[in-house]
Amino acid sequence: MELHEDGLSVVPEQGCAELLARGLIGRIGVTMGALPVILPVNYAMLDGDIVFATSEGTKLRAAANHAVVAFEVDEVNPDDRSGWSVLVVGPAREITDPGEITRAQALGLRPWAGGHRERFIRVRTELVSGRVIGNGQPAS
Amino acid sequence: MELHEDGLSVVPEQGCAELLARGLIGRIGVTMGALPVILPVNYAMLDGDIVFATSEGTKLRAAANHAVVAFEVDEVNPDDRSGWSVLVVGPAREITDPGEITRAQALGLRPWAGGHRERFIRVRTELVSGRVIGNGQPAS
Repeated sequence: MELHEDGLSVVPEQGCAELLARGLIGRIGVTMGALPVILPVNYAMLDGDIVFATSEGTKLRAAANHAVVAFEVDEVNPDDRSGWSVLVVGPAREITDPGEITRAQALGLRPWAGGHRERFIRVRTELVSGRVIGNGQPAS
Repeated sequence: MELHEDGLSVVPEQGCAELLARGLIGRIGVTMGALPVILPVNYAMLDGDIVFATSEGTKLRAAANHAVVAFEVDEVNPDDRSGWSVLVVGPAREITDPGEITRAQALGLRPWAGGHRERFIRVRTELVSGRVIGNGQPAS
């Protein structure tokens, strides 16, 4: 683990992949109406990419499709403020291929707005970076 | 509590303020080198605005100063995926007024990269919105 220029330890790419695979909840950052927005989503990994479910007609689906988005997962202990965070930046698109939809459905994801037909957004992990905060060490 | 167009319950503004006042860890969304970035920060409230500490010379400080940023706090139960999230969007600036610095120092914030001189970023809560996810109800 090398030291980041900001004094934080950097997690190697393989470590980031393991941390991403552990999580259930991440935050997606998109632009809506020229303003930055961050929303929590329930996610899973598919071939190393991030997949989350949205409902048909949501603003999030429209904003994420064909955009470069940020996706963040973290685990921070509020007591000693130690932990880690992993950031993914990459192009997002709605999954439309029937075979890929079937695979996404098998991930057990749920959009948080119930009652609508679910759609899946896939974020390619083009850039991935992780940081260790305070004394937190990702479990091996 | 009214129903959001996406099928999520909307938290009224006063409820958002209470939820923001409860948190310790939030996520800041900024643009760095034309790419979206989300990073966890230890924050506190000052006159209804978000304040967090950064270290001198960090990319985060440069990116947040004089930019419109997103700031998100959430509490999500991974088991039933219920919870809430509050989003603040507003202009950020570094605190430079000596009296304001003294007040920020009294908040007990710590930047996560140790060893540098701390600086404070203040995000004006210009737009604030909250959503209840699943069965989660913010504690009154």
